[in-house]
Amino acid sequence: MDLIEKLIAAQRAKRSLAVLGVDPQLDSKTAPGVPSGYTLARFCCEIVEACAPYVAAIKPQLAFFEARGLAGMQAFAEVLALARRLGLVTIADAKRGDIGTTSAAYAEAFLGNGDFACDAITVNPYLGSDALAPFVARVRSGRGLFVLVKTSNPSSGEFQDLAAPDRPLWEAVAARVRGWGGDFVGAAGLSPVGAVVGATWPEHAARARELMPHAVILVPGYGAQGASAADAIVAARPDGLGAIVNASRSLMYAFAKRPELKPGDAAAEAAAAMRDELNAALTTAGKTPPG
Amino acid sequence: MDLIEKLIAAQRAKRSLAVLGVDPQLDSKTAPGVPSGYTLARFCCEIVEACAPYVAAIKPQLAFFEARGLAGMQAFAEVLALARRLGLVTIADAKRGDIGTTSAAYAEAFLGNGDFACDAITVNPYLGSDALAPFVARVRSGRGLFVLVKTSNPSSGEFQDLAAPDRPLWEAVAARVRGWGGDFVGAAGLSPVGAVVGATWPEHAARARELMPHAVILVPGYGAQGASAADAIVAARPDGLGAIVNASRSLMYAFAKRPELKPGDAAAEAAAAMRDELNAALTTAGKTPPG
Repeated sequence: MDLIEKLIAAQRAKRSLAVLGVDPQLDSKTAPGVPSGYTLARFCCEIVEACAPYVAAIKPQLAFFEARGLAGMQAFAEVLALARRLGLVTIADAKRGDIGTTSAAYAEAFLGNGDFACDAITVNPYLGSDALAPFVARVRSGRGLFVLVKTSNPSSGEFQDLAAPDRPLWEAVAARVRGWGGDFVGAAGLSPVGAVVGATWPEHAARARELMPHAVILVPGYGAQGASAADAIVAARPDGLGAIVNASRSLMYAFAKRPELKPGDAAAEAAAAMRDELNAALTTAGKTPPG
Repeated sequence: MDLIEKLIAAQRAKRSLAVLGVDPQLDSKTAPGVPSGYTLARFCCEIVEACAPYVAAIKPQLAFFEARGLAGMQAFAEVLALARRLGLVTIADAKRGDIGTTSAAYAEAFLGNGDFACDAITVNPYLGSDALAPFVARVRSGRGLFVLVKTSNPSSGEFQDLAAPDRPLWEAVAARVRGWGGDFVGAAGLSPVGAVVGATWPEHAARARELMPHAVILVPGYGAQGASAADAIVAARPDGLGAIVNASRSLMYAFAKRPELKPGDAAAEAAAAMRDELNAALTTAGKTPPG
């Protein structure tokens, strides 16, 4: 199965648009990092296993593993091995993008068959088409990518919203995403060349859907970043497909608000609630939850 | 010493603008990857040690280590440990950029004190100021960054040259680099918030220097990518500082053209020649080689 077939099967089997962001925060005054009594790998794996019935995919954030050095990368590989055993779709949230043979090496790292291999990767478009070509080439091996189009952070508009020259830069990127993915639109009308469009900017989601009718849109910003379920499902098609919605901290750190539960149990409860909220929002919007 | 002091000291001690790109290519029909009889770490370390007298810094390319999974990351850590022992300035060519706590985690990974800690990192500006702020914050710990402004690849202009709206996007990014680095200009008139400006677009280098008078400009594209020494030194100041020039394949794979030499010896010969070529180009341009 290719990425789109896997994603659709997972969304239907789990009746869910939800994606678990595996973002083990660094220790700080405001974030608990890895709970006491856990290793990094055990913490992440407990969360992944517990949430598996409720999420269509997992999206590990490379930064939080790299920040812990070699031990972190070992934990990342363990999380992926578990996800493969559980049949979960995996999206490396790596936001890579470089030139020529370097982009090809990143594609090998994250869309190949090694320790860090995933089904899809997030990529940065700033360097243009030739930088993304090695990732797009992996579509033929069943892999996929999500191009950063409109991000969810406060400074997102600083460059992405610049008029370039007759439309915002992010719309120019969206137009290219449509082009890159055009050759790979499958039976469901979706392409494995997808896009990241933050839910914190819901006014852009409908426009993104227009500009990229075949892209699976990966929506960050739901949960801890403040976007609502109604904001998050704007880009979903009437059949509930074509958009997946990520939450990270609100699932992984659900235990902070439910101290009587194990982290995995608290995360599962939060993931089930997220799935239900997204499906309710779909229904309210006159769309059909997948399943 | 902070990044700028280290870089200036290295440039003067070695009389060199050269940076060794540590890019161990993947095995392919056209690239030899790791030479037979070598491990990845031993190959990279031999090259780094041999080139150390001739280069101001090394710039390992993360992609080529990540593509080799956990063993690759172990080799990356070994290369950095050697570089620290040799007192070399290290630039993680990681082109990272993400939001909030994620960018902070990348900054911890590459500008902290762990296995992957370097003196500086390359970063991608597409997400805007708040994404880069955690890297800029590390300047106070003596670290630095090089923001991708104008890259050296063929599709570089696809987004970077869009009129946005009254000047190219890359110039808008350059203006922000000046702003981000403005608080940190040191005695030499240089800021540890630097920029990447590809030597394959020499017409942009002079403009980049105007727009970012205090940025150290990291110039890729010299050597295998085809830019000349004269192209590469356009952004250097009259005193030979303010620009550093990377070459990767032409140094690491110099042994392919000199099969009678060990890889390290061939690389050292090529690095010395590169240094001399860059210094000759400075002299021709009426500038003074550092030293």
